[in-house]
Amino acid sequence: MSESARPAVLGQNQYGKAETRVVRITRDGAVHHLKDLSVSVALSGRMEEVHLRGSNTHVLTTDTTKNTVFAFAKQHGIASAEEFGILLARHFVSSQSAISTARIRIEEYAWERVDAPGCGTARHSFVRSGQETRTAQITFDGERLEIVAGLKGLVVLNSTGSEFHGYIKDRYTTLKETTDRVLATEVNARWRYGRTDADWDACYRGTRELLLHAFAETYSYSLQQTLYAMGSRVIGQRPEVEEIRLSLPNKHHFLVDLAPFGLKNDNEVYYVADRPYGLIEATVLREGAEPGIPVDLTNL
Amino acid sequence: MSESARPAVLGQNQYGKAETRVVRITRDGAVHHLKDLSVSVALSGRMEEVHLRGSNTHVLTTDTTKNTVFAFAKQHGIASAEEFGILLARHFVSSQSAISTARIRIEEYAWERVDAPGCGTARHSFVRSGQETRTAQITFDGERLEIVAGLKGLVVLNSTGSEFHGYIKDRYTTLKETTDRVLATEVNARWRYGRTDADWDACYRGTRELLLHAFAETYSYSLQQTLYAMGSRVIGQRPEVEEIRLSLPNKHHFLVDLAPFGLKNDNEVYYVADRPYGLIEATVLREGAEPGIPVDLTNL
Amino acid sequence: MSESARPAVLGQNQYGKAETRVVRITRDGAVHHLKDLSVSVALSGRMEEVHLRGSNTHVLTTDTTKNTVFAFAKQHGIASAEEFGILLARHFVSSQSAISTARIRIEEYAWERVDAPGCGTARHSFVRSGQETRTAQITFDGERLEIVAGLKGLVVLNSTGSEFHGYIKDRYTTLKETTDRVLATEVNARWRYGRTDADWDACYRGTRELLLHAFAETYSYSLQQTLYAMGSRVIGQRPEVEEIRLSLPNKHHFLVDLAPFGLKNDNEVYYVADRPYGLIEATVLREGAEPGIPVDLTNL
Amino acid sequence: MSESARPAVLGQNQYGKAETRVVRITRDGAVHHLKDLSVSVALSGRMEEVHLRGSNTHVLTTDTTKNTVFAFAKQHGIASAEEFGILLARHFVSSQSAISTARIRIEEYAWERVDAPGCGTARHSFVRSGQETRTAQITFDGERLEIVAGLKGLVVLNSTGSEFHGYIKDRYTTLKETTDRVLATEVNARWRYGRTDADWDACYRGTRELLLHAFAETYSYSLQQTLYAMGSRVIGQRPEVEEIRLSLPNKHHFLVDLAPFGLKNDNEVYYVADRPYGLIEATVLREGAEPGIPVDLTNL
Repeated sequence: MSESARPAVLGQNQYGKAETRVVRITRDGAVHHLKDLSVSVALSGRMEEVHLRGSNTHVLTTDTTKNTVFAFAKQHGIASAEEFGILLARHFVSSQSAISTARIRIEEYAWERVDAPGCGTARHSFVRSGQETRTAQITFDGERLEIVAGLKGLVVLNSTGSEFHGYIKDRYTTLKETTDRVLATEVNARWRYGRTDADWDACYRGTRELLLHAFAETYSYSLQQTLYAMGSRVIGQRPEVEEIRLSLPNKHHFLVDLAPFGLKNDNEVYYVADRPYGLIEATVLREGAEPGIPVDLTNL
Repeated sequence: MSESARPAVLGQNQYGKAETRVVRITRDGAVHHLKDLSVSVALSGRMEEVHLRGSNTHVLTTDTTKNTVFAFAKQHGIASAEEFGILLARHFVSSQSAISTARIRIEEYAWERVDAPGCGTARHSFVRSGQETRTAQITFDGERLEIVAGLKGLVVLNSTGSEFHGYIKDRYTTLKETTDRVLATEVNARWRYGRTDADWDACYRGTRELLLHAFAETYSYSLQQTLYAMGSRVIGQRPEVEEIRLSLPNKHHFLVDLAPFGLKNDNEVYYVADRPYGLIEATVLREGAEPGIPVDLTNL
Repeated sequence: MSESARPAVLGQNQYGKAETRVVRITRDGAVHHLKDLSVSVALSGRMEEVHLRGSNTHVLTTDTTKNTVFAFAKQHGIASAEEFGILLARHFVSSQSAISTARIRIEEYAWERVDAPGCGTARHSFVRSGQETRTAQITFDGERLEIVAGLKGLVVLNSTGSEFHGYIKDRYTTLKETTDRVLATEVNARWRYGRTDADWDACYRGTRELLLHAFAETYSYSLQQTLYAMGSRVIGQRPEVEEIRLSLPNKHHFLVDLAPFGLKNDNEVYYVADRPYGLIEATVLREGAEPGIPVDLTNL
Repeated sequence: MSESARPAVLGQNQYGKAETRVVRITRDGAVHHLKDLSVSVALSGRMEEVHLRGSNTHVLTTDTTKNTVFAFAKQHGIASAEEFGILLARHFVSSQSAISTARIRIEEYAWERVDAPGCGTARHSFVRSGQETRTAQITFDGERLEIVAGLKGLVVLNSTGSEFHGYIKDRYTTLKETTDRVLATEVNARWRYGRTDADWDACYRGTRELLLHAFAETYSYSLQQTLYAMGSRVIGQRPEVEEIRLSLPNKHHFLVDLAPFGLKNDNEVYYVADRPYGLIEATVLREGAEPGIPVDLTNL
């Protein structure tokens, strides 16, 4: 049989409802609590029939997976994104014989309370807060439960404490070395937990703080060094984290040349470029851990 | 001469550099301060030559307007978005005889400090904060200076304290009345000041807080009522504000029907729809003020 | 009464449902036709009650305006975006005594047929086409009907035939003059018709073609000149158009300096910058016409 | 040593300049040709030094990778996205001893000529065309060259010829079965070639056409079935393709319930929902091929 005559076969496949936005209000008298999630379900299993012959016998519809998200929000509440994802992932695999693996991806949007003097004891007003989005991914294959948390859109900047020099100069190199530059990035991180129960909200807050502190405290000779400092800080101080993947776009702040106007720019005026941008990505693992987080965190 | 034979003439026109992103760092020893603006310049005046004959004799290039933004950030610093805009607007009109009006639009991005324990006395680390963007528009025509401030992207939600009923029912009405709903919106506001000097940052913070408080404290029978409560609160308590325009998309939170699953939804589980959405827009003015803010705040 | 004691009053206001996406299929045997619109309704009239006291007595809900869009798509079909908007605008004003003005904004998305050999005589497969979005705005105040058509997102480029020199040089000017540059822009246009019935689809196609041809055929000494050539071409050749507003961002293509690599760049290699960008905006009118299109086509 | 005491180590890492937008003009007398690419470079190799100690000795800067893109556009031209990516990938690996693998990702934007009557024989005017973006990914590890092509943003719709029924009904199922629905999706595809030289532009055009035809010609009982028909059509008719990954969001077109208005909706009026949406993803391979394309084509 010639090479091109080999027929087509079905490979990895998954399906489900993406981006179901659910808001869950819990009332504790006049004090309300709010959880705001976007939930994406991806199921896989024995799905040859539907792909090859269009038979839906083994298909739990994406519409049903959406309904399940809403019903579970009522029945179980949303203790945390991770808890909610675990419940959903276990449900799909355990209730459907054809489904062998469920992956639940969640974005969580942060709100804080508005403390208005005229509201008395009522506490039901909120304002969206922060730039970053919290993420969680729960995967269950019937046996193993994998929990990956993360964040994206956390924009940070050091206005000094960053140098860049000593790099390779080849025929195409024009960049000038510098001993004082602005270092700014938009942190995109995912970290995998080595356990399946924890105070997930506390883990998130703790990890986020370590990332911020490591960024601020690292005197930097390259964004790679800063990235590794951030990742190893998390591995070193959060024993529940086995692995962290960081994707750090270098949000270039270039010093404006003011000399043509007879002015000196003593690291005071910068222009911010959108594109192109350096993109630094790496995984930092606990020694001996198996890497499990995909390499591509951005959809470039 | 037939109607269609009437020739073409040039009407209102303006030009300039849009979205120049400038970051200004000010060093006070180890304590750094940061201003982060996107500045858009629009100039108009005697520009028939360039439109009709391609002669650039009266054209200050958009590239030069960009350079001016950077040079002014160095020479004058950025005391506030409004002060910076005033300086730029006055400069273009006073230095170029062909330019009669300059309009400067500014977006300002908020940063807060990262207080990391290992930074010692150094204070040069920042994280982007808040969801909203502050805006300012300064227009100078050689005589009159108009200052309009604003914000966009401020997302707020009341989880109760909102009813909606008593509206017109025509042939196409299917909406059910409700005495308890979630009310959420993304505040897009511009307000015009009646004066040309003030503590602009304090004015902004004060107005933003009034908008938040009025939203939270208003028991609402319609989003129009809430909008007017927000606008009139600002007019009533900020004497420097002559007029405010609010554009409030109704970020619909619909109660999920859980009855098919044998569950009761006691105002607990909502789904959030993206489109379509109600859009409520109005101007609230101080009695006797001339309206000056354009009606279209969104680019629908 | 002191100035600040003047109370707040309600100014211009409008409301309605924005971005209702309606797809209308018409079946002509096995040949299907498709119209794909996003419709935004804005109503205004005697709305003091709802703003000041929360009474919805005069409020036709935004939900009802959405339902009306769908019902009219069934009852009347969608002959063109303009025809559909005229029907809706007339309906709201004539059927509701409190509504004095209706403004309908429409975006139309283009599709073309997929001619697949295995489809036989069936013609029900489509692919989205083109980069640009067609727009229409119909305003009816009970007497006057105003029809404004437009497009946005039409990206065009001339790889030669553009010079730029002879401009003002002030203290902040660094730009080099050039006699051969790339000229590229994303056309954002709105034009107002002087009549209320026409073959609107033919008018749109004709105007779009004139814009493209005038851009291509104009040897340019400035983007302003090109803009005016485009606008006056439309006024000159489409007698039904009274006024056109063009907003043209200069999509800068900068020549890359290859000299450091020992290479000559003979107008061959360009890098494209996102921001900042020159923004050139102007109205071209038929002599004697009253300008009616707002100045801000972009939401800067 | 306790589990948490295991130290951090560096895992997979890569870096480079992302989204360098390069436009290459080639002049053939008055006839110009244009290539418009966004190029993202990712390099990996012996990078422990820079991550762990901030030493840039082995770092070719991201700025240099950007310069190389521009210089190569001049030196070699851009025969096709794939050819250009192969040249770049080989260059980085062969010229830098520390770099062991280079991955070049490219987006290509389509333009077509504007044929204006007044241009005479000049052919230097272009308009952006099509909705979809062509993609290419070239990976070279010093030995093996992997070439993956693709497209994204190709929106297609069948207005009939689609049924959906026979699926699982569980406690959370409410969806009604249908024997005639609109099927629409935005095709996101990547396919891996089994060879390293070919007429890449012809391969792209041929594959794109097969995807369109298979979508149009398949009478569908599920989007999974349509996906597999599209993938297997490519594997069956393009011998150079070893594997294709498709990610198909179900762009839901829901029939509007017009009964409350006394109207019948005979598959004529649909509303289009943005979110949530079904997302169907699968790989189709030539029998015996090793899957090589990552599962996540979207950045959910």
